[in-house]
Amino acid sequence: MVSQRSRFSPLLIILLFVVVALAVFLNLFSARWARDRVQWDRQAIQEVLDAQVAAWNRGDLDGFMAGYWHSPQLTFFSGKDKTAGWQATLDRYRKRYPAEGPEKMGSLSFHELEIDVLSPDRAFVRGRWQLIRNNESLGGLFTLIFQRLPEGWRIVHDHTST
Amino acid sequence: MVSQRSRFSPLLIILLFVVVALAVFLNLFSARWARDRVQWDRQAIQEVLDAQVAAWNRGDLDGFMAGYWHSPQLTFFSGKDKTAGWQATLDRYRKRYPAEGPEKMGSLSFHELEIDVLSPDRAFVRGRWQLIRNNESLGGLFTLIFQRLPEGWRIVHDHTST
Repeated sequence: MVSQRSRFSPLLIILLFVVVALAVFLNLFSARWARDRVQWDRQAIQEVLDAQVAAWNRGDLDGFMAGYWHSPQLTFFSGKDKTAGWQATLDRYRKRYPAEGPEKMGSLSFHELEIDVLSPDRAFVRGRWQLIRNNESLGGLFTLIFQRLPEGWRIVHDHTST
Repeated sequence: MVSQRSRFSPLLIILLFVVVALAVFLNLFSARWARDRVQWDRQAIQEVLDAQVAAWNRGDLDGFMAGYWHSPQLTFFSGKDKTAGWQATLDRYRKRYPAEGPEKMGSLSFHELEIDVLSPDRAFVRGRWQLIRNNESLGGLFTLIFQRLPEGWRIVHDHTST
């Protein structure tokens, strides 16, 4: 009987203790980790948007486009027009803003931003854009889908309306 | 020495075997489960959209609104107008379509639908809408954010453009 009981100890008891301690530890800290991670993701996305605005306002269209997923699968919706792919999206901007430079492209700003992290690698952003150009003010709303890619968080879908 | 070695067996060996077998089993089947789950989610979202179209086309605005999150946090973007909350969204539709009934609300259809499940409880949908009413055809694009709620998948954000 004594040898029978000794099978359960001490290695098994240590193993069970480690498993239980690990479960308690993970439970206590996972909520905090998740909260921190979401906060970092929101910060990273905010930086992508800030970099886009800064690039636009120095007349750097390529810099602005760096916020978009460099893929034929990028989608850009505006009004009733669908644009598919990074290159076609750049071409669309080039057509509307044929001359680069801050005086030609105007002054862009984003307002009322709401960044919602949906999962560890997806987020969506709501906001309002304003462009002051040639003494006129244009504006509208946008909805962006962001994805975390190896190169960082990038816009994979943009729906913009005026 | 013999008693020392017997601590590791047979219960510990069985336990380790069960853990390894479980890990192999989960690894083999989790990809398949994830694929099936995404497929069910896409189907559930498609059904919400189908129910919206069917409700609209029988002139049932309340039935159409059942696809939206019944919350003040619902957001509806159209052009440069933000509408916040389920009630305000309903009021907006009521203003544009003051008389209910199929002949007043016209015939709605959704096209080019792409349903992307982003996580176990979030999805986004891209598509084109068409409304034939009083012999004229209106249309545009939409981007929807869906969330899985206790009551089912619901639209939590709608960005529509004409």
